[in-house]
Amino acid sequence: MRFAVIGGDMRIASLAQMLYLRGDAVRCFALERADLPPELCVPSLTEAVRSAECVILPLPAAGRRGFLNAPLANAEHRMDTVLAALSPETLVCAGRVDSETERAARARGIELIDYFQREELTVGNAVATAEGAVSLIMQDTAITLWRSRVLVIGYGRVGKLTADRLRAMGAEVWCSARKCGDRAWIEAFGMHALDTRALSGELRRFDVVVNTVPAPILTESLLRELCPDTLCIDLASRPGGMDFAAAGALGLRAVWALSLPGEVAPISAGGMILDTIRNIVKERHEWKN
Amino acid sequence: MRFAVIGGDMRIASLAQMLYLRGDAVRCFALERADLPPELCVPSLTEAVRSAECVILPLPAAGRRGFLNAPLANAEHRMDTVLAALSPETLVCAGRVDSETERAARARGIELIDYFQREELTVGNAVATAEGAVSLIMQDTAITLWRSRVLVIGYGRVGKLTADRLRAMGAEVWCSARKCGDRAWIEAFGMHALDTRALSGELRRFDVVVNTVPAPILTESLLRELCPDTLCIDLASRPGGMDFAAAGALGLRAVWALSLPGEVAPISAGGMILDTIRNIVKERHEWKN
Amino acid sequence: MRFAVIGGDMRIASLAQMLYLRGDAVRCFALERADLPPELCVPSLTEAVRSAECVILPLPAAGRRGFLNAPLANAEHRMDTVLAALSPETLVCAGRVDSETERAARARGIELIDYFQREELTVGNAVATAEGAVSLIMQDTAITLWRSRVLVIGYGRVGKLTADRLRAMGAEVWCSARKCGDRAWIEAFGMHALDTRALSGELRRFDVVVNTVPAPILTESLLRELCPDTLCIDLASRPGGMDFAAAGALGLRAVWALSLPGEVAPISAGGMILDTIRNIVKERHEWKN
Amino acid sequence: MRFAVIGGDMRIASLAQMLYLRGDAVRCFALERADLPPELCVPSLTEAVRSAECVILPLPAAGRRGFLNAPLANAEHRMDTVLAALSPETLVCAGRVDSETERAARARGIELIDYFQREELTVGNAVATAEGAVSLIMQDTAITLWRSRVLVIGYGRVGKLTADRLRAMGAEVWCSARKCGDRAWIEAFGMHALDTRALSGELRRFDVVVNTVPAPILTESLLRELCPDTLCIDLASRPGGMDFAAAGALGLRAVWALSLPGEVAPISAGGMILDTIRNIVKERHEWKN
Repeated sequence: MRFAVIGGDMRIASLAQMLYLRGDAVRCFALERADLPPELCVPSLTEAVRSAECVILPLPAAGRRGFLNAPLANAEHRMDTVLAALSPETLVCAGRVDSETERAARARGIELIDYFQREELTVGNAVATAEGAVSLIMQDTAITLWRSRVLVIGYGRVGKLTADRLRAMGAEVWCSARKCGDRAWIEAFGMHALDTRALSGELRRFDVVVNTVPAPILTESLLRELCPDTLCIDLASRPGGMDFAAAGALGLRAVWALSLPGEVAPISAGGMILDTIRNIVKERHEWKN
Repeated sequence: MRFAVIGGDMRIASLAQMLYLRGDAVRCFALERADLPPELCVPSLTEAVRSAECVILPLPAAGRRGFLNAPLANAEHRMDTVLAALSPETLVCAGRVDSETERAARARGIELIDYFQREELTVGNAVATAEGAVSLIMQDTAITLWRSRVLVIGYGRVGKLTADRLRAMGAEVWCSARKCGDRAWIEAFGMHALDTRALSGELRRFDVVVNTVPAPILTESLLRELCPDTLCIDLASRPGGMDFAAAGALGLRAVWALSLPGEVAPISAGGMILDTIRNIVKERHEWKN
Repeated sequence: MRFAVIGGDMRIASLAQMLYLRGDAVRCFALERADLPPELCVPSLTEAVRSAECVILPLPAAGRRGFLNAPLANAEHRMDTVLAALSPETLVCAGRVDSETERAARARGIELIDYFQREELTVGNAVATAEGAVSLIMQDTAITLWRSRVLVIGYGRVGKLTADRLRAMGAEVWCSARKCGDRAWIEAFGMHALDTRALSGELRRFDVVVNTVPAPILTESLLRELCPDTLCIDLASRPGGMDFAAAGALGLRAVWALSLPGEVAPISAGGMILDTIRNIVKERHEWKN
Repeated sequence: MRFAVIGGDMRIASLAQMLYLRGDAVRCFALERADLPPELCVPSLTEAVRSAECVILPLPAAGRRGFLNAPLANAEHRMDTVLAALSPETLVCAGRVDSETERAARARGIELIDYFQREELTVGNAVATAEGAVSLIMQDTAITLWRSRVLVIGYGRVGKLTADRLRAMGAEVWCSARKCGDRAWIEAFGMHALDTRALSGELRRFDVVVNTVPAPILTESLLRELCPDTLCIDLASRPGGMDFAAAGALGLRAVWALSLPGEVAPISAGGMILDTIRNIVKERHEWKN
């Protein structure tokens, strides 16, 4: 199969290299500083996408407003220009597509498949995020995870995997969820359950608190209940779940860790994107037949 | 709080005893042969439910058609008679309520709360079912779980927990699911994933196959692919997922294991029902206030 | 390589079958009722051992005094007769060799290699014993292992693996050891540690107690401290570690579980013996070269 | 009990603080820059040790030749001066005592109890080392531990725990040992075993290699077999187990990680030393009575 890879960070660069090493035809553009084999890089967008059966756009697709997300490119590229080069017949895969980009694509008759909406990629990203959280805690505390007491707020994908990995490292893990059923799952996997709506009075025991819920959970009044040594990590995407101003005023150590997968494991994250795109291609193929 | 416990098997009898030991007022009927403390048992239904704030009916509520499920009672009791004794003001909790019982209750203005529909109970039951499956495998094979190769078909509650426990015992666990996302979870938790729709060609390696999907999965043609020594366990509720006739004709060892929780862990199962009813009571109380 | 397999139970019969399936030359004697392929069985001891490079005797080698351990044979065979048929040049592997058998062999210039003294076999047996203990507990209690409280006395091979498997199934595991260092290991692996010499006062909380120490640990006075519902399992070889008479008088449920590997997993146990004998052969070969 | 704490790094400073917070009488010397509560610090060695029942010296006791190990002190202190201030009646606990210090102490009639020789401390240190190794790997690779392939060389304390934690994080763990029995344990805990003496030909598959054996294992010829991307970590104390010059010449990423516990978890490490000293005190007390 013939691929064009346009823009992106180290994850997308790794993905291009894997395609190449597995013997696929691949042409890259807007990845000039990624240290890729020279034969992969072509000097123009048109050349990159010409005869490509699948075009891969970055995660997220757009960078600053109206532009392609291309931190490893030598120049900036307008998203509009990129879309103009694509043919409506080509399969175009892009990550976390914003509504403006989607509208612009649709106006040109191009359907963008958002690989970031696929469960297999979000699960893989959650694994990498959980590892990043474990690493952060190990670096930012003077205690072992073993025998530490950690609260993970929220039992979605990231909460589930962060709790699992911390417990595996020997921490005493408490996990909070709003739903009765989620608390039952937390206990079924050998952890302690709390109700996210009733954390007050429970927080003093924890060495580390990890929030995964993108809603105002760790308010000033709850933060006041923490020991001054407690490390607070927020893994929730914007707007986050912690009152960072209050945490600062209280002298707490608070870390907002966004985009961990691309930071801690770009090669694995690139591989997961590639696997997801392969699944997309395979399913399209099955539908046609 | 004052409870009435009417009918049921060892799980419900255990539940009554726990209520008693924790100091709640409890009166039992239709549990004569359950070896309960005599002060719990009253000779008439009317006396049992009189002044009760919460009436607990069995799991499942109905036994043979039109009758209360009461295997430990000295006599049979028509469901209709039981419902006639209840007051519309009382909280009535019942398990796995069939449509006929529900209609009959509604006709008398009684709302039956089905505790078996609560996630916390189904998760707890899934834990007990998973343990039962592990126990069955250990009894019915001449090999250790350690280093055995097991396929768990389906990644719902029971599949998830059965796979987790088997892996914990040292088995090499493969788990199949139809959804891409479920297969991603299977791998995130360190197991091997297969597509339930594409099991053909994969089955020869397994020492044990555990089905959890209530749909015709293990058809004759798939069963033919198994090694003759493979143990097949079906945990799926009716209609089950294995062609038992074909399995028999092929000389395979096939076990249909239904209702494991009540069989392998009646005391724990009773405790889970009780915890669930407590949650129901608590939530009702919160709504009122 | 050419093997002779003489006597033994289902483990040894499985071992013979595995040798056969892997293409080794194997002749069996005193395994008539083991349902082996007829071409493996020879009618006389002399024929079985003739030209064999390795002779495999059972585990344990001797049955009732002076006789070969051969529960699947059609007749009894004196150990002396068996030894008389062997040549001092042949490698002879036997399991748990008693001193009488060893003396008799040495008198004939035959060196018996005791495969039961090899760590790899004792570890494998400990895995099977641990699984057997888990299975026993699941069958003999009315509660789930999940959330149960279990005490494992002793942190030798069997204690280590039994504790590990129980914890993996979701039990709250306490493990006792005399040595400070062992208690540190118990905690390093996420369990609670107790001092075996100071169990008094700690026992009331346990649903199950598993002893692995072959010394009088569970004396009457300690047994008195247990809840009447506690299940007591003794995995220790003779003389065991529990006062069974006292346990009976106190109405406790007490099980002395000996020889679990051969009972719960004869095929795996046979495979482990075979792997061990292969290691012995390999090492001998390396020494010679 | 009255303690004197003399010299040491953050671990010993944490230990002093814990003693203080638990209500013990404690006087510190040569820890001036440790940010301890002022009431703990005394200006002279004599004042610190006067009336102390237990004197705690650092880990290791000696720093550069002939001097106390006191990186947080305002001045240097000769070990001889320190020993001269101690009374033969006092219990003196010191860590990793070198032979020169031991001789000097004995000449003054002082018995140094080496807490670093206690199994409970070495196990605790191994836990912290294992966590440090996990953290290092996560920081120094661009892949997730999940699905990575890691080789741990050696199955002593550190090897055992490093392998356990890596597996818990989802890595595919291979562990090598020289002894057959250790390899059996590796497999009993669900990992793959290799023979440390036969690593050649096996190394190409690994993303990470962690050595724990203080002997020349990773020689130039073995290092040549690694993929160029493999991360090599040596956890073995001097002389280490890797040919770092060769690793450098081959362009491999190689890290020699010594003293991880004090670096990654000084507070926990201090707590472990304190627990060990408490055990020493308790045993001494029992012996006397």
